[in-house]
Amino acid sequence: MAKPLIVGLFGCGTVGAGVFDLLHSPVRRQKFAAMGVNVLISKICVQNVSKDRALKHFSASETIITSRFSDILEDKSINCIIELMGGTNEAKDVVFGAIKAGKHVITANKALVANFMSEILQLLQEHPNVHFGYEAAVAGGIPIIHTLQNAYNADHITEIAGIMNGTTNFMLSKMEAEGVAYDVVLKEAQELGFAEANPSADVDGFDVQSKIAILAKLGFGGSIRPTDVPTVGISRVSAADFEYARMMESTIKLLGVAKLLQPANDVTGQPQEVTVYVSPVLIKRTHVIASISGATNLVNIRSTNLDSTAYVGPGAGRYPTANSVLNDIVQLARGDAPLDPFKASVPLTLQPDYEARFYVRITVADGLGIIRHVGQLAEETEVSIYSILQAPIVDRSNVQFVVTTESSLLSKVRTMCQKIAALPFVRDEPLYLPIM
Amino acid sequence: MAKPLIVGLFGCGTVGAGVFDLLHSPVRRQKFAAMGVNVLISKICVQNVSKDRALKHFSASETIITSRFSDILEDKSINCIIELMGGTNEAKDVVFGAIKAGKHVITANKALVANFMSEILQLLQEHPNVHFGYEAAVAGGIPIIHTLQNAYNADHITEIAGIMNGTTNFMLSKMEAEGVAYDVVLKEAQELGFAEANPSADVDGFDVQSKIAILAKLGFGGSIRPTDVPTVGISRVSAADFEYARMMESTIKLLGVAKLLQPANDVTGQPQEVTVYVSPVLIKRTHVIASISGATNLVNIRSTNLDSTAYVGPGAGRYPTANSVLNDIVQLARGDAPLDPFKASVPLTLQPDYEARFYVRITVADGLGIIRHVGQLAEETEVSIYSILQAPIVDRSNVQFVVTTESSLLSKVRTMCQKIAALPFVRDEPLYLPIM
Repeated sequence: MAKPLIVGLFGCGTVGAGVFDLLHSPVRRQKFAAMGVNVLISKICVQNVSKDRALKHFSASETIITSRFSDILEDKSINCIIELMGGTNEAKDVVFGAIKAGKHVITANKALVANFMSEILQLLQEHPNVHFGYEAAVAGGIPIIHTLQNAYNADHITEIAGIMNGTTNFMLSKMEAEGVAYDVVLKEAQELGFAEANPSADVDGFDVQSKIAILAKLGFGGSIRPTDVPTVGISRVSAADFEYARMMESTIKLLGVAKLLQPANDVTGQPQEVTVYVSPVLIKRTHVIASISGATNLVNIRSTNLDSTAYVGPGAGRYPTANSVLNDIVQLARGDAPLDPFKASVPLTLQPDYEARFYVRITVADGLGIIRHVGQLAEETEVSIYSILQAPIVDRSNVQFVVTTESSLLSKVRTMCQKIAALPFVRDEPLYLPIM
Repeated sequence: MAKPLIVGLFGCGTVGAGVFDLLHSPVRRQKFAAMGVNVLISKICVQNVSKDRALKHFSASETIITSRFSDILEDKSINCIIELMGGTNEAKDVVFGAIKAGKHVITANKALVANFMSEILQLLQEHPNVHFGYEAAVAGGIPIIHTLQNAYNADHITEIAGIMNGTTNFMLSKMEAEGVAYDVVLKEAQELGFAEANPSADVDGFDVQSKIAILAKLGFGGSIRPTDVPTVGISRVSAADFEYARMMESTIKLLGVAKLLQPANDVTGQPQEVTVYVSPVLIKRTHVIASISGATNLVNIRSTNLDSTAYVGPGAGRYPTANSVLNDIVQLARGDAPLDPFKASVPLTLQPDYEARFYVRITVADGLGIIRHVGQLAEETEVSIYSILQAPIVDRSNVQFVVTTESSLLSKVRTMCQKIAALPFVRDEPLYLPIM
C-alpha cells in the first residue's frame, strides 16, 4: 500500500474547486479509503486568500489557504502538488520547484507541458522518484493520456487526429446546422461564455496546437515544440464552405493531426518522419469524427493492431477536468503511476509538408477564362485537379467556387494558391483545407 | 522492477497465434525490454500438437508445445497463463487450476468470466497474490476494462450502453444501408465468415449478454448472472423497421444496456436498483452510437462527472484481441495490475422492469377500427401513445404500422403487446423496442 498523499493545490478556480469537492466529499473519501487511496489537500495556494471559494467539505483544521508558493514548496509534509494555475510563467516556477523538491506533480496545464516538455523530461530524469501526471491537460474528461500510455504498447500508432477544442467545435457545429456566418456564431459563443473576449487561443488553433504536440509525443516518441506545428484556425471558414462540404457529403472540423509519414528505416538509420498540424479539415459525414458536435471532444487513433479506435467525451468543464485530475491522483496513490509518463524518446523528423487531397475555395469577380487560368496554375505547380464545384451564382462580383485536388503535397497546393491569389479577378487568398 | 513473466498459453488459434507473434517479435521484445517488461511463452497447450500453426518467431528451444493441461499447470517455472480456448468447461478447469496454483491469469473468455464471476471472485480472494486480466473479453480491441477500472473511480456511472457484437452490427448496418431483409443479410454474413453456421450466439444476443453482465459489474459493483439479463436478439428486426426508423430520423442498433434506476438509499439501507438488458434499440441518427456501422464496437458511458464518454474500436479479430491480451501482460509485467480487477462489491437489486419510450410495430390485416382497438388496449394497460406512423399500404392483408409510446414500463408495454397479439386482425406478436 502506497503512503498517504498530502497535497498542495495551486489555483482554486473552477477546476480547483471541483478537485477539492471530489477529493474531500465524505462519500468518495470512504470509497477511496476502501481502495487504499488516502489523500488530503493540506494547503491551497491562491492569489487572493480572502475570496470566498464556496468549497464544499472545507475544514480549516485540515486545509490552510495561503498566497505564498513557498508555503507549499518548502513544506516537507507535502509530497504532491496539483497545479491548476494555468499560464507558463508562475506555473513553471511552481512545477519545476516541486519536482526539484521531490514532490509528485499533477497538472492540467497543456501549454506548460507542451512548451517545456524537454525541460520537464530532463528534470524528471534527475528526480526519478517523482511522478508526473497530466491526464487533464488534453481533452478534458477523456482518459486519453492514460490510454496512450497503456493501451498501445504492443501496437504501432500511425495517426492521431482529434477534435480537441470545444469552443470551435461548438461554433463549427452551429455554422453547419444553421448556415450562419462565422462572425455571428463567434458573437453567440462569446455571449454564452464558450469563447473568450479575445478568442484567439481557440479560433486560431493555438489551444489545439499544444494538445496535439503532447499527443504526438505519446504516439511517436519525439518531443515536438508547439511553435513548430503549422497551425490554421477557423476564422476564414465561411457559411459557403459548409454548403460546399454538404455537396461533398462532408463537414468541416478543426483537427489536430499527427501522422506517421515514413517509419524509421533500420538499415539506413533514418528516423521516422512525422507530420503534425492543426487545420480545419473536410471530413465525410459517415466518419465517426463528423458525428461529434457541440463542445464534445474526440481523439481518433489509427494503429497497426487496432486499425481505428476513438475516444469521445467532454473537452472541458469543472467536473470532467477534475475527474481527470482525480484519475492521476488515484493512480499515484495506488502506486500505479508510470515511471515514464511521456514514454521513451524515439528519434523523429518533423516534416511540415504532407500529402492529402485538398479542398480549395476561390473567390472571384466572375468573368471568362477563370477555370482555364486556375487549371493552368494547377498544372504549373503539379497539382492534379479532381473536381470543380460551383453553387448557383447570386452575386457576379463575388463568386465562390471550389476546386478539389488529387493527393498533392501541401507545399504545392500552397504555391498554387499564392499564384491564384495574384490573378487579377481573384478577390482574396484561396482557402485550402485538407480532405480526410 | 517486476520479475519476468513465464507464460503458459492455452489455445493457439487466431488470437493465440496473434498473441505469440506480438510477444515474440524481435522489435517488440526489444521495446518491451526497454520498458522493463520481460515475457516469454514457454509452453503452448493445444489439442493437436502436430498441426502447423505458422507461428512467426517460434523457436523450439524457447517454447514447448503440449496437449496436457498439467504440463503447464504443474510447471512451477510458469507464473502466468493466458487462456484462449473459449468455452466454459475445460477453460474453467484451466483457469481455476491456474489460480489455485498461484499463477496469474489472462483470459479473453467472456462466457467464463460472466458465468463464473462469483466463483472467480471467491478464488481470487483466497489467492490474493494472483492477478486476473480480462481486457480481451469485452469489445475486442477497445481498452474498456482497464478504462472502467481506472477512469471512473471518482465518478458515479449511471449508464453503460454498447454495441458489443460486430456480426449483428454489420448485419443491421447493411439492412439500413441497403434496405435488405434479415434473412438475406444473415446469409451474406455467413458467406463472408462474419456469422457462424449456427448464428444464435450472435443474433439472439447471448454474446452481448455476457459482455454487458461483465461491464455492469465494473460499473455498478454487483455480480449479475448473464442468464438473469433479459435478452432480445435481432432476428425479428425487418426492413420495415428500418423504414420506420428512418421516418423517425433514427436507426436500430443491438445494444447491451446497464442502467442505474435508483441510487442506494443511505437512510433506508435500500441497495441501488439497476436494470440490465440486451435488445435492439431505436436510436436518433445524431447520437454517437448511431454513427457506428459495420463490425465496429462502441461503449458509451454516462456518469455524473463526465456526462457522456464513448469508446470506439474493433470488436474482434486476431490483432485487436491479441493487443488487449498484450495490454494485460504489460500491465502485469510492470506490476500495475489492479488488486481488485472487478472492483469492490456493492449490493445491487436487479430490476428487470424499466421505463423508456417504446417503438411498437404491429402487423395486421387491414380493416376498420384497428387504431381504436389498439388505443383501447393501450389505455387499459396504462400505456400512453405518443405517435402513430403508417407507411403507404402496399398489401391490405399484411399492413405494418408503428405506435410509439410515452415513457412507459417495459412490463406494461409487454402486456399491451400480448393483448394486441390476441386481436383477431393482428397477424403476429408486435415487436417492441426501447427508444434511446
